[in-house]
Amino acid sequence: MIRLGELFKRLAVGRALRSEQLRETLLSKRVALPIFASDPLSSVAYATQEILLVLSVAGLVYLHLASWVAVTVVCLLVVVVLSYRQVVFAYPGGGGSYEVASANLGRSAGLVVAASLLVDYVMTVAVSVASGVDNIVSAFPALHEYRVGLAVGFVALLAGVNLRGVRESGRVFAVPTYLFVGAMLVMCGTGLLRWLAGDAPVAESASAGIRPEPGYEHLTGLALVLLVLRAFSSGCTALTGVEAISNGVQAFRPPKSRNAAATLAVMGLIAVTMFAGVTALALVARVHITADACRLAGAGPGCEAVPQRTVIAQLAAAVFGGHHSPGFYFVQAATALVLVLAANTAFNGFPLLASILARHRFLPEQLHNRGDRLAFSNGILALAAVAAGLLWAFHASVTDLIHLYILGVFTAFTLSQAGMVRHWNRKLRGEADPARRRRHRIARSINAFGAVCTGLVLVIVLVTKFTEGAYLAVAAAVLLTVLMRAIRRHYDAVGSELAVTDATAQTVVPSRISAVVLVARLQTPTLRALGYARAIHPSHLTAVTVAVDREESRALVERWDALGIDVPLTVLDSPYREVARPLVEYVRSLPRHGARDVVSVFIPEYVVGRWWEIPLHNRTALWLRSRLMFVPGVMVISVPWRLSSTRVRPPRPTPRAPGAVRRGEPDPRIHHRPADR
Amino acid sequence: MIRLGELFKRLAVGRALRSEQLRETLLSKRVALPIFASDPLSSVAYATQEILLVLSVAGLVYLHLASWVAVTVVCLLVVVVLSYRQVVFAYPGGGGSYEVASANLGRSAGLVVAASLLVDYVMTVAVSVASGVDNIVSAFPALHEYRVGLAVGFVALLAGVNLRGVRESGRVFAVPTYLFVGAMLVMCGTGLLRWLAGDAPVAESASAGIRPEPGYEHLTGLALVLLVLRAFSSGCTALTGVEAISNGVQAFRPPKSRNAAATLAVMGLIAVTMFAGVTALALVARVHITADACRLAGAGPGCEAVPQRTVIAQLAAAVFGGHHSPGFYFVQAATALVLVLAANTAFNGFPLLASILARHRFLPEQLHNRGDRLAFSNGILALAAVAAGLLWAFHASVTDLIHLYILGVFTAFTLSQAGMVRHWNRKLRGEADPARRRRHRIARSINAFGAVCTGLVLVIVLVTKFTEGAYLAVAAAVLLTVLMRAIRRHYDAVGSELAVTDATAQTVVPSRISAVVLVARLQTPTLRALGYARAIHPSHLTAVTVAVDREESRALVERWDALGIDVPLTVLDSPYREVARPLVEYVRSLPRHGARDVVSVFIPEYVVGRWWEIPLHNRTALWLRSRLMFVPGVMVISVPWRLSSTRVRPPRPTPRAPGAVRRGEPDPRIHHRPADR
Repeated sequence: MIRLGELFKRLAVGRALRSEQLRETLLSKRVALPIFASDPLSSVAYATQEILLVLSVAGLVYLHLASWVAVTVVCLLVVVVLSYRQVVFAYPGGGGSYEVASANLGRSAGLVVAASLLVDYVMTVAVSVASGVDNIVSAFPALHEYRVGLAVGFVALLAGVNLRGVRESGRVFAVPTYLFVGAMLVMCGTGLLRWLAGDAPVAESASAGIRPEPGYEHLTGLALVLLVLRAFSSGCTALTGVEAISNGVQAFRPPKSRNAAATLAVMGLIAVTMFAGVTALALVARVHITADACRLAGAGPGCEAVPQRTVIAQLAAAVFGGHHSPGFYFVQAATALVLVLAANTAFNGFPLLASILARHRFLPEQLHNRGDRLAFSNGILALAAVAAGLLWAFHASVTDLIHLYILGVFTAFTLSQAGMVRHWNRKLRGEADPARRRRHRIARSINAFGAVCTGLVLVIVLVTKFTEGAYLAVAAAVLLTVLMRAIRRHYDAVGSELAVTDATAQTVVPSRISAVVLVARLQTPTLRALGYARAIHPSHLTAVTVAVDREESRALVERWDALGIDVPLTVLDSPYREVARPLVEYVRSLPRHGARDVVSVFIPEYVVGRWWEIPLHNRTALWLRSRLMFVPGVMVISVPWRLSSTRVRPPRPTPRAPGAVRRGEPDPRIHHRPADR
Repeated sequence: MIRLGELFKRLAVGRALRSEQLRETLLSKRVALPIFASDPLSSVAYATQEILLVLSVAGLVYLHLASWVAVTVVCLLVVVVLSYRQVVFAYPGGGGSYEVASANLGRSAGLVVAASLLVDYVMTVAVSVASGVDNIVSAFPALHEYRVGLAVGFVALLAGVNLRGVRESGRVFAVPTYLFVGAMLVMCGTGLLRWLAGDAPVAESASAGIRPEPGYEHLTGLALVLLVLRAFSSGCTALTGVEAISNGVQAFRPPKSRNAAATLAVMGLIAVTMFAGVTALALVARVHITADACRLAGAGPGCEAVPQRTVIAQLAAAVFGGHHSPGFYFVQAATALVLVLAANTAFNGFPLLASILARHRFLPEQLHNRGDRLAFSNGILALAAVAAGLLWAFHASVTDLIHLYILGVFTAFTLSQAGMVRHWNRKLRGEADPARRRRHRIARSINAFGAVCTGLVLVIVLVTKFTEGAYLAVAAAVLLTVLMRAIRRHYDAVGSELAVTDATAQTVVPSRISAVVLVARLQTPTLRALGYARAIHPSHLTAVTVAVDREESRALVERWDALGIDVPLTVLDSPYREVARPLVEYVRSLPRHGARDVVSVFIPEYVVGRWWEIPLHNRTALWLRSRLMFVPGVMVISVPWRLSSTRVRPPRPTPRAPGAVRRGEPDPRIHHRPADR
């Protein structure tokens, strides 16, 4: 059974990898850009679309506001990029928002950031994959009904790839990201040039009118402001993932900070250009898009309109000549690919952050273990499960999922920028050099401005999105924060309970051991257990049976006597046909001559070799063990009897790298303390 | 956690019961009849309906054939009742079909019968509950869409009731069964009298025409015969449960056989009367029924007809004056109730048969244990799960489920009657008295005729129902038979492997014990394990740690040295970050001076008190244990360390009946062997 499971695992994730194979390969700027930037750059694929979607509820008239919203988003993007450049220089060791907030604002702020980021990684996977699927469906509309299946399939694929452990993934990332950037720039350039030449591209939805939703017919004052703010909140998805570079400064070639900052700047420039270009082109080509395709068609109730193509797809078709042109397919393929790669960055980030949190004992320690392919397997599986669940629950709808997004991003932005302000304050206090002081002051004001801006956006997002689903993200983050605190409290309590001090370091040898051998039937395993019990030289030895069935117990006692076994057999009455309770009470009642006495309970256990044999043998032994563990001063001894079916299996071969230490030999590379008793 | 589970269990099934409370109360004929007869009598509720349904595919013209089919079923019922009277006299100890077939035809036949009966019990539950729900829905059509939920709910209710253990259930059974019989007789009597008086009751569906199904328009020859045979197969459901009395002869008051035979006769009489009466009344009242309500309505494609009422409901409405008359509600209530009670008989029969099979080691031994309410809990749960699954899979449709039924019944009938023929042959061989020989010969011919008739029906059922679902029942029975043989083979092999003979009875004491203490961290539980290991006086003692993380291992070794712990610490290299494999290989590699040497592996284990703490502590210990159990000559010793959260719980009070033996005292009622070492 174990071998079968092993086989499946090897087929799925590949051979086990040795710990030494975990080596950092330093990245050049050219390779680092696509690795870190696929997430922020890919958000161009949905940011514009979500702005237009929100504005469309008020009808066609208000679509032109999209340009102002886009300009604001671009400004915000510049501010955030500038802010993170400060982080990159201040924390060349790789200052993730969690570390920056923890170090400067304390544990609570750090935990809030960590929880927000964990939620956010999940949303990155969900939104990116959903948007990727949308772009595939735009190219192949027949796939529409398999959307959820496709999305969940992509998440499973990403989990599988990451469980295998992605080494050298930079090269894999570089091509699609650069292709995507290239495709976007060419598309925007061509489209806008054609517009200047008076031959503006026309989107397929250009001729369709959009009726305002009921209640949004004649917007004025506050309602209009709220609508624009909601569009702005949605557009802020363009900023997700900007902080990725600041986490990975260590991965750059030296001068690390300088290179990282330069990459950040280039990324910001590309992101701004692409976002502005796509938005402009969408307005020029008159892309009319709405969440409700019937409203677009101007149809009445009962309408069953064909779902719309994505903004990118409409633009590509308009610029490159229709839905069957090579250019269209190329853009869609590059877009879908880069979105899936963006989801993949979360598959790197989430398990890493979870493992850091586990090392700080805020999460279960299993998340800190690298699997045998050197990946943080448990974190990857957790992320994939939650993201797939969300995609399934929200029918892989980008518009629905996006309300849960960004909140986490901006919480992390705001708190880490605020932390940076503190950081510079501290620096300023210990700094005398006026030139440095001036640089610190400038950095501080940049970060302060960033904190204020992102904080403002955070409030806007909260207000405009809360009832539309953001409350779920808030709840998840709050829950995670509380949970992480509780876990840390538990580990701390256990740690101080179990700590070894110099005073308690010497082992205490129990004074007396009594041995109790559990007898269910008079069979060879029982006799072996009796023999083992003798061998530990107990001060008192007795066999015990629980009389679940009177007849059987009587027969057992008779055979026991007939065979002349020279260990006394005690029969425990069990009127309620339980086994555990009478046994636990018997063990508790055994006379002790001091606190240091120990009772050793011997349980003969069958070991079966085939999985279907498991239900054929009473699982009482396991249950008894877990109950006996609660009795103070007890050790539970399993005496295995391997049924013959377990004996035929040959010993399993062990994968060994050359030079590995064999078996029990002390490892020469690690200290080995010689026996000196 | 354990206490919470315990609390839920007690709330659901009640207090634990002492073994002595299992006492047989002997039954009078008046009480025995409803207990054993609710299954065969209740089948009246669907047998007639299924005959009419099958015939309806050929259109209205062929419905009159139902009377001939019914007459044949009645004759068969008489034959089967007569046959089982012989069984009752021949096996006064309670000759279930399984025992009769095993004793006379050998183990294979017995197993086939047992498998058929197990499948059949499942089908009894499914069909009876589905029909009961149909009759409820007939009274309250609004419940139609909750049919499956209702059915599964009833199964859960029955399982719950039976897990509580039904004592004195005779009284509970008597009232609804007699009410049902009374209601049926009054309904048939009134209806037929009105018919004689020229005022025949008219069913609600009387005026509807039924169009023949395509291909059945002008039936002749073989096709007609097949149709009638299919109707007959469906009608044979009236015979299910007839054998119940022969299983329960021991429950009757003396003279047991005489009383049982009399009850059987009365039951047969009532069943024949009711079945004949209902069928006659259905023909008189012109109940037109079909599986496809649209066909009844004569409507074209796209029809969405309201589902039809059951035959019983239509008759009750016709006789007692409409769908809102008290008589109608009374008949429906009695019918639904008796059908649920019929399902309950399977909840008695299945676990009992399973426990007998488990005692004979054909099924896992868990099925032989009585739960703490004295019921065979595992059997009850298994039956409920499978029956609920079937109801869900077949949408609680009687018509679909019924194809899987009867096959098992008639397999059991045929084989047990054939077994009876052998039984009488054997009796005749040893009998000289001519009067007795004559009686045996008569009995033999009755059973032989019964075997031939039921065998013939078995073939008919197989041929006419196989493709409609009966193949599933055949497959399940074959699978069960194969499985039971395999289980027995396994238990036999294990039994002979573990048997203790006089020669091997003396315990062999291992010559040397080496102790290995597993160290993950240097904490108090580790020190306790070291102390316990010392106390067993091993010939060799070493501490072992697996270097999953190089840094941590190095730190551990340094602390170990700093604290001056006087046990050598061996570090095992683990390039693939596994714990189990290096440890298992180390233990295997330890030098042994003889086959009788033993390695004892000490594993310090945390015991947590709250369920949510479980995932917070590495479950490695459990995994290690199960891997080490496969190493020969090993005993695995768990040294529990109860985390403080487990210490606050007070000791659990024990329910005790007066006079019970306390704790470790030897039970005076059972032999206790004094210590004589």
